[in-house]
Amino acid sequence: MSDGRAVEELVVGVLGGTGPQGRGLAVRLATAGQRILLGSRDAERASEVAGQIAERAAAATGNEASVTGGANADVAGAADLVIVAVPFGGHADLLRELVEPLAGKVVVDCVNPMGFDELGAYVLDVPEGSAAQQAAALLPDSHVVGAFHHLSAVLLEDLSKPTLDGDVLVVGDDRASTDLVQALAGRIPGMRGVYAGRLRNARQVEALTANLVSVNRRYKAHAGVRITDV
Amino acid sequence: MSDGRAVEELVVGVLGGTGPQGRGLAVRLATAGQRILLGSRDAERASEVAGQIAERAAAATGNEASVTGGANADVAGAADLVIVAVPFGGHADLLRELVEPLAGKVVVDCVNPMGFDELGAYVLDVPEGSAAQQAAALLPDSHVVGAFHHLSAVLLEDLSKPTLDGDVLVVGDDRASTDLVQALAGRIPGMRGVYAGRLRNARQVEALTANLVSVNRRYKAHAGVRITDV
Repeated sequence: MSDGRAVEELVVGVLGGTGPQGRGLAVRLATAGQRILLGSRDAERASEVAGQIAERAAAATGNEASVTGGANADVAGAADLVIVAVPFGGHADLLRELVEPLAGKVVVDCVNPMGFDELGAYVLDVPEGSAAQQAAALLPDSHVVGAFHHLSAVLLEDLSKPTLDGDVLVVGDDRASTDLVQALAGRIPGMRGVYAGRLRNARQVEALTANLVSVNRRYKAHAGVRITDV
Repeated sequence: MSDGRAVEELVVGVLGGTGPQGRGLAVRLATAGQRILLGSRDAERASEVAGQIAERAAAATGNEASVTGGANADVAGAADLVIVAVPFGGHADLLRELVEPLAGKVVVDCVNPMGFDELGAYVLDVPEGSAAQQAAALLPDSHVVGAFHHLSAVLLEDLSKPTLDGDVLVVGDDRASTDLVQALAGRIPGMRGVYAGRLRNARQVEALTANLVSVNRRYKAHAGVRITDV
């Protein structure tokens, strides 16, 4: 629970934290001073990666960084707010196991249901409509928010560029939770959390990542999204 | 057919040109010097609106503007490139009638299949996947491109601001056609056409408009989209 605490006081768990997206988010948030619990199926691997992230964040800022690794279930139980950054293939199975430790918490889903073939990326159909809605269906006692879909893992990890260029589209049905996640996004220099609608409109936010893959191929870029006039 | 001609030489038809989106695109393109044929179910109404648009474009630029109105079918037959800006409700029926006049042409679909209820905007399911894919299915001899989904009609019509702030995401399967539509988008000052993938990834580009509706409500804005790092 966030319990009305300011976002910078929250311990943020990152499930799937040893993958590119999870690692990138963890190192950026740790660099911004956020305390991080890094989760993985393999607790030992999580500790190892957490140590590397803590070192990199400390080197970038000159301050100590708090990044600790553990098994996904332990991280889910200990964190105040939990980011789900696992591949879509393992999404439902993981969340089904974490209903209790995630109860009452803000759960931030940044999973993009995508496949790849010879024509590039395409969008996978999710029976619930989107990964975020699947999470909400599986976690009835959590506050599920969709966010952090469009951030290039490459750019997140590249601390030589202290500022990123992009908005985080935040979708969800609970105002306090979307406000909190917007504030969390805003802790990363150059980024901004923008409220972008209810959970029923999560699908296209997730799916837009397939278009960004095409943009990246065509322009040899690490594309992100900005919302104009806001 | 564009016949390899430069985009500024093409006569652009706008079907549904008397609606807010069509009118806004028409006045911006006319202001940029594009010759426009404005289509409507009601040819007389189209002529009337075309006259107003021509006057406004001429007043904004000091140059004569070429904007002529007509029935949708006549416009479809006479234009070199055709923008479809009708409400989704009439989309399939209109295109079914225009298979022949649109054959061989680049058809730019900017239709957003959306509904509204007490919670705001939501996305309508389209059997073909998206409005653009529906157009491609109905117009097998045309080159269908999806584009111009995220431009605020209010900002398009407001010529007191000569420059707009936003990218036009262009999706399609034919490179020459997407290149042409990108060039057309780039004729509007401040806008840029960005290739954003194949037609199978059109759905989320169209659907993102529902999220922009939520952004507009929350921030009292006329939101658009920019792609970063491109």
